Amino acid sequence: MLRRLLIAFCLLFCATTAAHADPLKGEDGYDLWLRYRPVEAAKISDYKTRSSVIVTAKSPTLDAAASELQRGLGGMLGATPPNSSTIADGAIVLVTPADNRGFAIPADLDREGFVIKSTTLDGHPVTVIAGGSDVGVLYGAFRYLKLIQTGQTTAGLDIQDAPKLDLRVLDHWDNLDGHVERGYAGTSLWDWWRLPDLVDTRYTDYARANASIGINGAVLNNVNAKADSLTEPYLKKAAAIAETLRPYGMKIYLSARFSAPMELGGLKTADPEDPAVAAWWQMKANEIYSIIPDFGGFLVKANSEGQPGPGDYKRTHAQGANMLAKALKPHGGIVMWRAFVYSEHDATDRAKQAYLEFQPSDGQFADNVLVQIKNGAIDFQPREPFHPLFGAMPKTQQMMEFQITKEYLGFATHLAYLAPMWEEALQADTFAKGKGSTVANVIDGTLDGHKLTGMAGVANIGDDRNWTGSDFDQANWYAFGRFAWNPESKSADIATDWARMTWSNDPKVVATIVPMMMGSREAVVHYMTPLGLAHLMDTGHHYGPGPWVSELGRPEWNPAYYHKADANGIGFDRTKTGSNALAQYHPAAAKPWLDPKKTDERFLLWFHHVPWDFKMKSGRPLWDELVVTYSQGVDEVSAMRKTWAGLEGQIDAARFDAVTANLTIQEREAQWWRDACLTYFQSISKRPLPAGLTLPGTTVEDYRKRVFPYAPGRG
Amino acid sequence: MLRRLLIAFCLLFCATTAAHADPLKGEDGYDLWLRYRPVEAAKISDYKTRSSVIVTAKSPTLDAAASELQRGLGGMLGATPPNSSTIADGAIVLVTPADNRGFAIPADLDREGFVIKSTTLDGHPVTVIAGGSDVGVLYGAFRYLKLIQTGQTTAGLDIQDAPKLDLRVLDHWDNLDGHVERGYAGTSLWDWWRLPDLVDTRYTDYARANASIGINGAVLNNVNAKADSLTEPYLKKAAAIAETLRPYGMKIYLSARFSAPMELGGLKTADPEDPAVAAWWQMKANEIYSIIPDFGGFLVKANSEGQPGPGDYKRTHAQGANMLAKALKPHGGIVMWRAFVYSEHDATDRAKQAYLEFQPSDGQFADNVLVQIKNGAIDFQPREPFHPLFGAMPKTQQMMEFQITKEYLGFATHLAYLAPMWEEALQADTFAKGKGSTVANVIDGTLDGHKLTGMAGVANIGDDRNWTGSDFDQANWYAFGRFAWNPESKSADIATDWARMTWSNDPKVVATIVPMMMGSREAVVHYMTPLGLAHLMDTGHHYGPGPWVSELGRPEWNPAYYHKADANGIGFDRTKTGSNALAQYHPAAAKPWLDPKKTDERFLLWFHHVPWDFKMKSGRPLWDELVVTYSQGVDEVSAMRKTWAGLEGQIDAARFDAVTANLTIQEREAQWWRDACLTYFQSISKRPLPAGLTLPGTTVEDYRKRVFPYAPGRG
Repeated sequence: MLRRLLIAFCLLFCATTAAHADPLKGEDGYDLWLRYRPVEAAKISDYKTRSSVIVTAKSPTLDAAASELQRGLGGMLGATPPNSSTIADGAIVLVTPADNRGFAIPADLDREGFVIKSTTLDGHPVTVIAGGSDVGVLYGAFRYLKLIQTGQTTAGLDIQDAPKLDLRVLDHWDNLDGHVERGYAGTSLWDWWRLPDLVDTRYTDYARANASIGINGAVLNNVNAKADSLTEPYLKKAAAIAETLRPYGMKIYLSARFSAPMELGGLKTADPEDPAVAAWWQMKANEIYSIIPDFGGFLVKANSEGQPGPGDYKRTHAQGANMLAKALKPHGGIVMWRAFVYSEHDATDRAKQAYLEFQPSDGQFADNVLVQIKNGAIDFQPREPFHPLFGAMPKTQQMMEFQITKEYLGFATHLAYLAPMWEEALQADTFAKGKGSTVANVIDGTLDGHKLTGMAGVANIGDDRNWTGSDFDQANWYAFGRFAWNPESKSADIATDWARMTWSNDPKVVATIVPMMMGSREAVVHYMTPLGLAHLMDTGHHYGPGPWVSELGRPEWNPAYYHKADANGIGFDRTKTGSNALAQYHPAAAKPWLDPKKTDERFLLWFHHVPWDFKMKSGRPLWDELVVTYSQGVDEVSAMRKTWAGLEGQIDAARFDAVTANLTIQEREAQWWRDACLTYFQSISKRPLPAGLTLPGTTVEDYRKRVFPYAPGRG
Repeated sequence: MLRRLLIAFCLLFCATTAAHADPLKGEDGYDLWLRYRPVEAAKISDYKTRSSVIVTAKSPTLDAAASELQRGLGGMLGATPPNSSTIADGAIVLVTPADNRGFAIPADLDREGFVIKSTTLDGHPVTVIAGGSDVGVLYGAFRYLKLIQTGQTTAGLDIQDAPKLDLRVLDHWDNLDGHVERGYAGTSLWDWWRLPDLVDTRYTDYARANASIGINGAVLNNVNAKADSLTEPYLKKAAAIAETLRPYGMKIYLSARFSAPMELGGLKTADPEDPAVAAWWQMKANEIYSIIPDFGGFLVKANSEGQPGPGDYKRTHAQGANMLAKALKPHGGIVMWRAFVYSEHDATDRAKQAYLEFQPSDGQFADNVLVQIKNGAIDFQPREPFHPLFGAMPKTQQMMEFQITKEYLGFATHLAYLAPMWEEALQADTFAKGKGSTVANVIDGTLDGHKLTGMAGVANIGDDRNWTGSDFDQANWYAFGRFAWNPESKSADIATDWARMTWSNDPKVVATIVPMMMGSREAVVHYMTPLGLAHLMDTGHHYGPGPWVSELGRPEWNPAYYHKADANGIGFDRTKTGSNALAQYHPAAAKPWLDPKKTDERFLLWFHHVPWDFKMKSGRPLWDELVVTYSQGVDEVSAMRKTWAGLEGQIDAARFDAVTANLTIQEREAQWWRDACLTYFQSISKRPLPAGLTLPGTTVEDYRKRVFPYAPGRG
């Protein structure tokens, strides 16, 4: 009896101390959404009846699954179930086709899919986590843990799931010197200098976090690539990372510099039609696979922003991509070829150029090539209409490129939950095969019957302790994984899951945080680029406003190019009277955008140049609406700050204070965005502000003088 | 009885879980030497009898002391003593002159000094920790904790101690964009972008670590300074850091750019004799103190490596320093003026230039100026003789500048415990006032009766989780603090304390680690720059060997300038027949170095150009000795690696593996240093290797071709 009491006491106590091992330190965000803090005491014993022991065969991936279950259940329930080879009451049984223990795995289960089922094995009530392969089991283990993390029951389970896309990849824009381009969370995770000898234990936690949301690939180096990544020493470094990620179902990829045959091979050309060039790449591919047997393939940025490419030799993107694809093909590798191109030689409308350059090549890309397309036609703006290439290349495998790092949405400081933006893009209707031809159905392969599918996210991860530079930016990493797993996901569901796992299962806390997150991106649109405006960011750092910038060398580098504000009005005419970019969309998709009077006002100035007194749906003239909308954005941030303040005491102090600080900065900077943009636009519109709204009286010249040489993530 | 058992069980259990809250994560080095892991069970109850309760008044610093005692005792003994206002048996009583509780504080106790005494107060046996002020108590609290951390008794204590130097300062070479010049541990701790709103909780742990070793100041920005640090926004950011550090007895300082009156004030000159310039600095000093009331003062790098200074106006360093000192004086601030200068206009011997430029100004510096002098006359080499300025300016307050970051000793990768190097410099005899006029006695003010004293260390701290980029580099931060507290400290004692607190109190572990540390710097000397060689590092990154470099624009940028190897021999003649730098030393100090036959061979090639067949004390000719010594360095690293391997299982796995990885790299790179340097020197000496020693056959040209564009800490 005493012994039992002691054990019971110990278990309770253990749970408490595991959660707050050193209360003076507080939470630091390192654990992400895998915090595994103790669940409410009343629920523990019920959960425990179904996690007495973990029955599993051995493999690196099954070991990872079992270890994660032990970590998670140990943390949440205060008792770590042992591993066992014997099934017992309440066991969690990990099942694979190679070791099915009598469980009937559904025949249609995808290699990466899983089943979680409450059932009976050998006469014992158990929970089976069955995978189409070991990695399916790992994904199932994380899903099982999520049930407890989010306060759901583990009784009577019958869940089957599998990813809808093949490639679910993080693109790290990390340079070999540790700098992360557009990174706002410290330097690169990859210590290239000391790899392969020193393999940071953090890489394992990185892999765990990714596996928990099904991300199965990482491009390790910047798309603005150096050829050095392809040299033997760097391949060995990459191999050490690959080895750490492998048990978690992740492959590594590299950004390939197209001119590498010249820089590394001493060739005089990188012409994809030159046999010596093709031979060099074949030799290089063979070398890579001899060092990294499950290497994923190449990501390529070609003929864009100074990068070399097939265009240097008057070859098409398809010719370039296919040459690389051929080299990788024998090894099972693939090529992700970016469609992000624009040229100073055709400055009529940057939004049109990717389509013009890529669409004619439809059907010419090899079957292990995907064309990787940003969600919009410009560049990761707070809001863009969907990219006209989606659905316009039915014979080409198209994958999505989202930007998780907030290059244009306030870096790591501003709170902006990006999932609603991604959902908006994925649910946009291309009409390519009639109504309902969503972007999601283009990239999941169902619309055109493609085999190979994928989604890439430009990572927001650095070596900051909390990984992403702020606690709320973790949500964007999480949401990306969820959309890559299933492009039909709903941002609100994702936010709810994330908030429960990251902050609290307290319904009041969840009901406060989720709406705040859901409105946050729209607030950024309002105070930065409302009503269809885009790219008003200052030069170089992309942090603050610079709508006045008009003197840069190339037209499309200037914000003035994008807003085209003049005495008559504002906006970019992309109708027939202007650049006619609208013609790149399917007529049915373009139709609602043809007439400014009928255009969704969120896209108005993207497609139309309209007079300052254009009458908006609110009844206000455009100028007034612009002022009101900018002001609304500021108000929305103020409201977020106040909402968050109301959570004091319900969130651990360290993270509460950090979010508070960021919201304080965001509120000040939202005001700056509003004031600077409206001051500038008023100097052109020459119109008074609507009643009750004011500007601080700072001149455009004063705003223009502000420089930010120390802004993070430059270059 | 049951209750007691439960409590006893809980306490034991608590201690265990606090140590290994999440065993899957392992130790990550974040806790530094303040790990506070449970002590051996047999000792706990004894320690506990003298830590029943903490009796203290309230103040930010006393709160920090009490909180640290609670954290430390809670971690080590498994029971956190409560705070109380009532003295009881076994209390720890914090005593200050303002609240002495009847304890007789020694009249001569320094403001920063402390007494720890086992005594009786109000009839209760207690331990008094008395300070000359609140911060003395804080230092005493850390000392008390160290007793337990290192396994000593807390009974019968009677300890009195106080720092021997006034200024004990870390110099952060941190740029405002987060890059750390010569930093090898990630980016800057200071998030200038989000300060002052976002104050990282890590700053508190930084302050705790510093206070634990008595460091009482931090220069926040790089000596290669931008004037922006002195603008109001950046002063407010610095103020937020100052506020966090203040309770821990730390002041902040800023590197001041001498031309700031032109860059910020719009003046046409920064001439220190121009009244408008002086007035600008006075105005700036007043502004700084209005924002940071206890601001420490300025660090200045003037007329060195492109930095502006009084020399631009034909003024002396004293004129420049005194002008700044005058502006700070009314507020109690001080100036640390660096003596690190060398000019391309006098290329005869870089080692002579600081002396030539500074010594004539002896007696001209204001009483709130210290001249900050590197330990040697060149630049933080693995070994240099002491700087000839020490002792040569008796009317000037001189402070020491050590480099904790290992710019020339293998960055964060190579294991090199620097304390023996510093002890060597501090114990060097200047003979300025006869035998025994050590550098330590110059800088502690006793030799010349100076009031203001100090020591600066160029920090090796970044935002890496383990702070310093490797676990063993933490020892150098720790040792710097100990030497700054007491320049007469012994490196072996420091290593022993550090190893016990950082790794283990197991005598076998300590007896293994300490000798390894003690020999580690000499190993680096052997495989990088033996026998008095210096500055053989490659250009830019200072990581690998580059003895062949001779083509750079300024003579003293080239390793060939330093080794002067030719067909006849090798070494820099600094006797009368050469640069006569020896004449800058006191004759008695110079005497043992005049004759190459009598010179300590560790300095031989520093002072002499000697023939390749010069007979060494070993009986070997110099060339053979050089080869043997380089090889010995490699062997010493191999031995370290093997020694460390023997600790497997006695050290937590995460840190064990990381050190193993670094030693693996170090062994390979020691070999590279040996092979590259000897291959090059052999191409000049044209001599065969001694029997049994070989080179890999790589050519000098091959070594020369190796480039390292991604080496850490460039610039």
